[in-house]
Parts: sequence; structure tokens; C-alpha cells
Amino acid sequence: MNYSIIRYILCRVLEFQAIFLALPCLVAVIYRERQGWAYAAVLAGCLLLGFLGKLKKPGSNVFYAREGFVAVSASWIVLSLTGALPLFFSGEFPSYTDALFETISGLTTTGASILDSVEALSKCNLFWRSFTHWIGGMGVLVLILAVLPLAGGYNMHLMRAESPGPTVGKLVPRVRHTARILYEMYIFLTLVQVALLLVTGMSPFEALTLSFGTAGTGGFGVLNDSIASYSVASQAIITVFMILFGINFNVYYLVWCKKPGQALRHEEMRYYLGIIFGAILLITINVRDGFSSLLEAAHHVAFQVASVITTTGYSTADFNQWPEFSKFVLVLLMFCGACAGSTGGGIKVSRVVIMMKLVKNELSHLIHPKRVRQVHFEQHVVGKDVLRSISVFFIAYILIYGASALLISLDNLDFTTNFTAVAATLNNIGPGLGQVGPASNFAVYSQPAKYVLMFDMLAGRLELFPLLLLFTPATWKKR
Amino acid sequence: MNYSIIRYILCRVLEFQAIFLALPCLVAVIYRERQGWAYAAVLAGCLLLGFLGKLKKPGSNVFYAREGFVAVSASWIVLSLTGALPLFFSGEFPSYTDALFETISGLTTTGASILDSVEALSKCNLFWRSFTHWIGGMGVLVLILAVLPLAGGYNMHLMRAESPGPTVGKLVPRVRHTARILYEMYIFLTLVQVALLLVTGMSPFEALTLSFGTAGTGGFGVLNDSIASYSVASQAIITVFMILFGINFNVYYLVWCKKPGQALRHEEMRYYLGIIFGAILLITINVRDGFSSLLEAAHHVAFQVASVITTTGYSTADFNQWPEFSKFVLVLLMFCGACAGSTGGGIKVSRVVIMMKLVKNELSHLIHPKRVRQVHFEQHVVGKDVLRSISVFFIAYILIYGASALLISLDNLDFTTNFTAVAATLNNIGPGLGQVGPASNFAVYSQPAKYVLMFDMLAGRLELFPLLLLFTPATWKKR
Repeated sequence: MNYSIIRYILCRVLEFQAIFLALPCLVAVIYRERQGWAYAAVLAGCLLLGFLGKLKKPGSNVFYAREGFVAVSASWIVLSLTGALPLFFSGEFPSYTDALFETISGLTTTGASILDSVEALSKCNLFWRSFTHWIGGMGVLVLILAVLPLAGGYNMHLMRAESPGPTVGKLVPRVRHTARILYEMYIFLTLVQVALLLVTGMSPFEALTLSFGTAGTGGFGVLNDSIASYSVASQAIITVFMILFGINFNVYYLVWCKKPGQALRHEEMRYYLGIIFGAILLITINVRDGFSSLLEAAHHVAFQVASVITTTGYSTADFNQWPEFSKFVLVLLMFCGACAGSTGGGIKVSRVVIMMKLVKNELSHLIHPKRVRQVHFEQHVVGKDVLRSISVFFIAYILIYGASALLISLDNLDFTTNFTAVAATLNNIGPGLGQVGPASNFAVYSQPAKYVLMFDMLAGRLELFPLLLLFTPATWKKR
Repeated sequence: MNYSIIRYILCRVLEFQAIFLALPCLVAVIYRERQGWAYAAVLAGCLLLGFLGKLKKPGSNVFYAREGFVAVSASWIVLSLTGALPLFFSGEFPSYTDALFETISGLTTTGASILDSVEALSKCNLFWRSFTHWIGGMGVLVLILAVLPLAGGYNMHLMRAESPGPTVGKLVPRVRHTARILYEMYIFLTLVQVALLLVTGMSPFEALTLSFGTAGTGGFGVLNDSIASYSVASQAIITVFMILFGINFNVYYLVWCKKPGQALRHEEMRYYLGIIFGAILLITINVRDGFSSLLEAAHHVAFQVASVITTTGYSTADFNQWPEFSKFVLVLLMFCGACAGSTGGGIKVSRVVIMMKLVKNELSHLIHPKRVRQVHFEQHVVGKDVLRSISVFFIAYILIYGASALLISLDNLDFTTNFTAVAATLNNIGPGLGQVGPASNFAVYSQPAKYVLMFDMLAGRLELFPLLLLFTPATWKKR
């Protein structure tokens, strides 16, 4: 393990954290909030630490996959630990653990809160919560790669460790250009949403924070009832943008390159849109009687389906009150998640589709044992390494799932609550069912259970292995 | 598809069903019950149908894997459909669907009942329910292979399709001898249990039926409170024998061959016993306060743990009332299941262990991408085909799980009930939690939901693929 290069990257991350913290500082100045001092102090601390730590140059440039995984995991932990400080110093959170839970929930774009009333928070804290979604959505190391000329060939290792999905597709040959294009599209789409929300009459503060939450598929709102009290037009815009941010960004790049035909043929996107359409249809039929009109039902169902499959976690209706069938469809969507290469979490549509094709292939194999069949996806044969990594990802996912639910069940909350609390955090969604439903929050859990759920949020966002490697002794051995 | 050979095998199965039905007839004669006539009538029908169907010899001896899978699935369906008839004709079941549910639950060694009071049943029906456990435990085609000289080389295909576990180990080179040895050990162990239960003062009828339920890891009892009102000694004997019947029968063969050293080194058995010990320890600590002494707590915990991990489903205590942590440990055990090559269901210990080793290997692979590592189990390298089939089994398992729970959620029962109802049927356990807990039964579900759960019971017992192949169009195509 090349510790010196990890230290160097972490110092860079601290410098970026200082830049991020400047924004809530500015918000505090505008709204004349004294909590701004907390942000200023942590900003100064990050700058100083980053500067001091960088004084000694890294002794070696050795950078392999394991350094990439460790660098990414450590960066996210550092961002969480420092990002929680201003929330804690502001005095608006009961404990540092709660502030840390909220920050990890923000950065991992989960959106699970421990607060009873978010409306009681100062504007700068509200802004910071939402802004962490935006940072975490596309990833901080992708941002660093986009703007900094990092020497050495380790860009791809960082990109791979932070980007979601079974394979990481470079848009262009150079990782740095890929990262830049991704962020340009991300900023562009966010700004379009902000503009549209402003047109519907939303305040600039709300338009900005809610767009951050949508773009990162996060879910922190600024009102206690999430998105329920906004206009139908605003809700519709958010529905559409949640779905857009759940699409593989490769699709937008194809559009950008004026290849709309190829974009429309994108297999993962087609499955993703098909699942959304099917889920809306099924749930609308199931909940129809609870709404005054079919259109109103479809409107709210579309919002909730988009929110859950993209793992955003906003809500306009308390789906915990819906019939069991509708709730179960939503639970399945929680696991499915959005497209790879989007800002959404979950297992990802591509993995689910490839796994289904694997089962279909196995059945053919049993009928014709001697015939060799391959799995095709996006007009290509899926390689054996990718198939193995998808299977093992799924196994690790279920194992972590079971272990987490077991640990938090020590709090003796009911089965539904425990089961969906892990689903909501490991898939980076936010609300679950039962006592962690859309109308409730995660304050019901004890401190140890909160740490388990924090681990799940980070593991979910970084797709398990980077975080699991931290607990593997071989990672820390000398080569 | 060679239909004529399937027809021939099904006729053989009907003849065996007639022999099986002779036993409850005998019980009816002993207890002078008029329900015996129902058994006699169905017995005669099976004999006649088997005789007529066999008049035309099979046109071709072609028998490949797919014929094996279809023959096994079809045999189990025929056994279920005919086995349910006497229960229905006896008038003691509300409908044929309910009688079929009870029979499938018996044959697949699930033990889930739709009856409020089993004590209201006639003795011959009680006997038949328990005896189906014993037939289904080791498998009816294994029995046919053991006693009939089936021509052609298709023995292995049948054995493989009916035997649980990732690989089918032949004990001796000839399949027929392997089948015979398995049944000899099965009969021997059952008789030992019957003898021991008789020593504790149990009536012969109870000793026999409860031993059938233990040997097949089924779970149907003859009293409404399952095993709760028997003596501590009887409960302890059943605990031990449940654990024994969950061990891979290869271990007993090694003992039989006087190789106790090799038997003790059996990796799957060691993990299995380790998991049992760990689970008893954790739950005993968790439920200690609910019992008058630590010993009493350990006694009941050991019974429930043994019952759940072996997927038997007997109970001496209503674990639905236990703390959430204990319940969650039991839910995890439901999924884990017993050893491959035992009469127990679930995913199987060997699959779980190999999957964990796969995750560990993937982590090493990420750290040292160029180093090739293999998965070892039972002192051997696990082949790539076996690894793939285990991964795909697990994926198919979770997919069927999700689809089943979705379908039965249309009944609008709560999440815990739906989730554990599928766990209890797909893993062939019996009781779940909530409204299908040990003190309740499956009558709460509608008829369509019952058919979904029947599918799950069969799919679980035959390890998914034989049943899934029935729904694959390629199975039915001409070669």
C-alpha cells in the first residue's frame, strides 16, 4: 500500500471540501445567519490541514487498483467527517453522530434524515444538506479528475472505484476529458431544472436546493412534508428530472454527439423506462380508489415511482399508507435502482437485466448442455469477468444486507422497519416503510444502529467493494 | 422431448403411489375409520392408471438431462395431485385446493398447514400427512431407482434432478447402489428415532408420525401445539434427530464405511454445526429473560434453531413472540437451510459457504488482479461450472422470491407475513412470522396466493430449475 499517495489525494480532497464549504458560508452571509461561522471555521481547518499535509510530496507514484479503492473510500470518509462538523457546531443537531448520519446520508445521496423538523434548520444548514447531494451524486474524485492535472496513470483506478455500475465506460479516451464532459452535462441539466422550477414560481433558494437533491438523486427537502405542498407543475418537473438523472449519462453524451438513434437504442435505458412505466401502471390501478381522480392518482404514483427507482427519496404522498401490493412494488424498485453511470443507487437496471439473462442462459444450458451461449447486453457480448463480478456483487450485496438487518434488529423495532431501513440506506433511497416511512425519520434507531446504517449508505454509494477492502487485511500488506 | 419415456416413468410413479397409499389404508383399518375407503379408492385408481399407461412400451430410449428434469417435476406434480384426493374425499378439508396445499406441503417436507386444528383429523389422514414427509424427504425417484432395474443410462439424470445441493455425489459408482444405500441409512435412522421416542413413553402412532416428520425434515405434527406438550426427553430426542437429518448423508456413508476421521473432517457439516451452535448461543442470550432458567431457555432455543435451520418446522415455543433480533437470526437460518445431500431444504450450507468464499476471492482479486485464485471446498477445487451454477441458482432464487412475495401481497396481508410466508414455503420450512407464525396457519391466504405458495414449495424442494424448465418453451421443442 502506497500510503503517501493516499495522503496526497486526501489533502486534495480537503482543499475541495473547503471550496464546497464556501457556498453555505455565502448563504449564511445572505441570510445573516450566525451558523455561518461554523462553516467558516471548518473551511479554514480543511484548508490548513490540506496545505500542511501536502508539504511533503508523495515518496512513490505507485498506484494500483487497491490504492484507487482505498483512496476513494478514505476520501468519502474524510468528506463525511469534516462535512458533519459545521452541522454539529451549529447546535441544530442533537449529537455529532446525528450530524454525521445526516452528512453521510447527504453525500451518498440517500436523503435519510434523523430530524423531526427540517423547517427548524437555518438556511445555510439546509443548503449544505442539499449541496452534499449534488457533490455526492457525480462524485468528488470525478470532479477532482475533471479539474486537476493529476500526474500518473491512476486516474482510471479512481474513476472506476467511484463510478456506479458493473463496467465503467469512458466516453472519450482520456479519463480527464470524460470526467469533465460528465460534469458539464451534470451542471447543464441541473441549471435547466433550476430555471424550470423558477418559472413555476418557486423561490430561488428552493429551486436550487431541490434541484441539487434531484440531480444527485438525494432526497433532502427543505419542508417537513418533502415535496407534497409544492404546485402540481413543480412536482411534475421534479418527476421528469428524477427520471432523467436516473438515466445512464452515456445516453446524454450520445445526444450531445448528435447520435440520437444510438441513444434511443440504449438497452439499459429502455428497460429502465419500461420498468417505470409498468410500475406506474400497476400501482395506479392498485391505489386508484384512494384519490379523487385517475389523473391525480397517476400524478402521485409517477412521482413516487420515479423517486424510489432513481433512489431519490422525495415524496408527495405517504406511500406507507398504500396497499401492500403497491408497497411491495416500491420495495422491488428500491432494490432494482436506476441505470449504471447515473447518479442513482441500488443494484442498477443493467445488473438486474444481465442477471435475468444469466438465469435464462442457465435454463438453455440445462436443456442443451453442449451448446455454448453468451450473454448479450448493449449489442455486445458480456465478458466472463463482468459476469463473475456481477454475480459476486449480488452475493456480497445480499450478505451485507442480511448482516446489517441482523445488527439493527438488536434495537427491537419491527421486521418491516428493519428490513426497509437497510433497503433505504444500502440503496441510497431515504425513506423506507413502517417506522422509517416517508412521514417518519431514522431518529428511532439507537446510535450503534445508526453507525451500521451509515456503513450501508457508504457501501451502497461506492458499490460495496471499496469499503469492504478497508476491512480486508491483505489491502494493508506491503506488496 | 421424449414423451413416451416420461409417460412410462409417470406410470411407475403411480404404482409406487398405490403402495404408499396402502399404509394409511392399513391405519384406517386399525382405527376402524371410514375415511380409509377414500384411500382404497385412490389406490385402486392409481394402480389401474399405472397399469393401463404402461401397456404401450416407450417408443424410444432417448433420455437426456431435460427428460430427467421434466420427469422429476411431472412425477412430483402427479404425486401431489393424486395424494391430495383422499384428503379431499375424506371431507376433512374445505376444498381440493386446500387438500392439494397440504399434500404439496407434505411431499416437499414444508409442513405448512391450512388447518386450524389438526387434532380434528382422522388418524389415517394424520398418518398420510406425515408419511408424505418421509417419502418426499429422500425423494420418490431415488426410491424407484433403488428398487427397480430401470433400463437405460438415465438414472443419473433422475438422481441429479431430485437430489438437493450444488453437486450430486455418488457414494458408489452405480447410481442404483447409491440410491439403495441412501434409503437403507434413511430407514435405519428413522427406526432408531422411533425406538427412542417409544422409550420416552410416546404412543407408537405418535412415535412413527413424528419420526416421519423429523426424518423428512417436514414438520407436520399430530397435536395443535406441534411438539410443545411432549416431554422434555422427547423434545430433546427430536432436536438431536432434526440436526442429524440435516447433515449430508455422505457423512453417514463415511461412518458406515468405518472412516470416522474423514466424516469428522466434512467441511459442510462443520460449518453447519458451527452455525447451529452460534445461533443457539446468540438467541439464548437474547431470550434468556423470557424463561425460568437458562437451561430451559437453551432447551427451547436449541429445538427452534434445529427446527428452522433443518427446515423442519416443528415448534415447542411461539418464536413469533421472541425479540426481533432472535426472530431475525431465525429468518437468516431459514434462508441458509441444512446441508446438501440431506433431507433439509433452503439454499444449503455448502452454497452459502462457497458464496462467501467467492466474495473473499473477489476481494483478493481486486487487490492482486493478476493472481489467480480458486475456491476450495471439501479439500477440492470447486469447478467453474459449479461456481456458475451456484451463482445463477442464487440469482434465480432471489428473483422467484421477489416475484412470489409480490404476487401474494395482492391479498393485502402485512409485509412481515408475506415476506416470511415465501421464506417458509420456498425453503420448505413451514411456519413463518406474523400471521403465518408457529401459532397460526396459511388459511389466511386466498386461493390464488395458495397456488403461488404451492409453486414455491415445489420449486424449493426440486431446487428451482426442474420446475422453471416446465415454463421454458425450448424444453418442449423437438431436438
